[in-house]
Amino acid sequence: MIWLGGLWFTIFTSVVMLLAIREFYQINSTQDSSPMLWLGWIATLGIVMMYDNSIALVDNYLIISIIGVVLVGMAVELFRVKPNPTRNISITFFGIFYVPILLGTLLSLRQMDTDYNSHLTFGLFISIWVCDSAAYLAGRKWGKKKICERISPKKTVVGCVAGFIGAGVVFSVMIATKVLGTQFGWIDVAMFTVISGVFGQMGDFAESLIKRDVSVKDSGSFLPGHGGVLDRFDSLLFASPLTFVYVQLFF
Amino acid sequence: MIWLGGLWFTIFTSVVMLLAIREFYQINSTQDSSPMLWLGWIATLGIVMMYDNSIALVDNYLIISIIGVVLVGMAVELFRVKPNPTRNISITFFGIFYVPILLGTLLSLRQMDTDYNSHLTFGLFISIWVCDSAAYLAGRKWGKKKICERISPKKTVVGCVAGFIGAGVVFSVMIATKVLGTQFGWIDVAMFTVISGVFGQMGDFAESLIKRDVSVKDSGSFLPGHGGVLDRFDSLLFASPLTFVYVQLFF
Repeated sequence: MIWLGGLWFTIFTSVVMLLAIREFYQINSTQDSSPMLWLGWIATLGIVMMYDNSIALVDNYLIISIIGVVLVGMAVELFRVKPNPTRNISITFFGIFYVPILLGTLLSLRQMDTDYNSHLTFGLFISIWVCDSAAYLAGRKWGKKKICERISPKKTVVGCVAGFIGAGVVFSVMIATKVLGTQFGWIDVAMFTVISGVFGQMGDFAESLIKRDVSVKDSGSFLPGHGGVLDRFDSLLFASPLTFVYVQLFF
Repeated sequence: MIWLGGLWFTIFTSVVMLLAIREFYQINSTQDSSPMLWLGWIATLGIVMMYDNSIALVDNYLIISIIGVVLVGMAVELFRVKPNPTRNISITFFGIFYVPILLGTLLSLRQMDTDYNSHLTFGLFISIWVCDSAAYLAGRKWGKKKICERISPKKTVVGCVAGFIGAGVVFSVMIATKVLGTQFGWIDVAMFTVISGVFGQMGDFAESLIKRDVSVKDSGSFLPGHGGVLDRFDSLLFASPLTFVYVQLFF
């Protein structure tokens, strides 16, 4: 889908985000709160349009939309007669900012690939996968000291370091073979490695924290053997927006 | 402060918002959740800069800031070792969207007054005050049927209708005396009346709902005899952004 780009990638990303925000609301519905899935879905589609067409730049689209979502959410809660309205709205908004606002940056990144003839989106996905795999394999083989047992009881220091190195190898190979895009240099490789190898893993921890909060192990069962959609995209939730911000600010 | 405009109004609005978001977090800290006041305050100041300078229009300032707040909030919660991290972040974000995102629109509205030689900001404040007073007086004198006892046990149908009429009278007088601004017509008066007289009162109900949720009567004790800052600005939380959106879209 990254390869095809355009509408295909938009549809793919949209479906992932719609499923992921539903999972987020589902796992957070256990603590007697009732987030509004329909509002999250409408906001997701609006955010897709924003990232996909860069209409954030045009007029006050974004701020007017935010105001709309906030007011509609609160007005609906007035008539809803559910317990804990504040928490319901809060979780609803958090889901919107956690899932589509962060993950939707993939759309803008992918468009930048088209504009600049780069393969940064591929690099991002592959570095995250290699980071995860390297962390898992090295951690299982040599890992002893746990890095943060409170949040994620199985992750080891060795695994995290191996994951970081793995991400660095991916970007290094991509720049050496001129696949990444000629506008990027070794400093950018270092930054992308930190983003995927450090902040990507932090995204993993952040999702573990959310799951631990509500005592679930997997965010869903969408992909058999892989847990839920959120579990698959947790690192990208942090790595994609940071890559987007980095490229926006420096290119 | 509305009269002085410029830096004075910015300072006034900023202080109101900083106090109001603190109150929001305080009343929501009772339900074993710990919102991050410092993050709410930083976001408030950023939002002040945005509305004050219309830098939402320039570059991707707003979306990059949102991404920053979301990622920083989650990263901090990783190291914070407090119970209920999801709820803490959720309440923190909700406070940001409820208070500065909505109320900060006052700054853009006041700047429009300067640009178009109008007195819409005055009209907004006065219509809200007259609406509140008319609703209170008429409700106490003639009110019988309660409008929504579940949320606000004292408000009556008669009071709400009187408030709506009061708001309409304010805007009608202002347009008839050419105080409101010559670019506005009677259709705009009708719209502003609906915004202040219906949605302003809805803002009042929304804040009651939030307080009811945590079983407090006043949001704070900042103004003796008047409750907290949030209690004073609850109608404006709904009326100001809607006026802003209306003016943005049609002028």
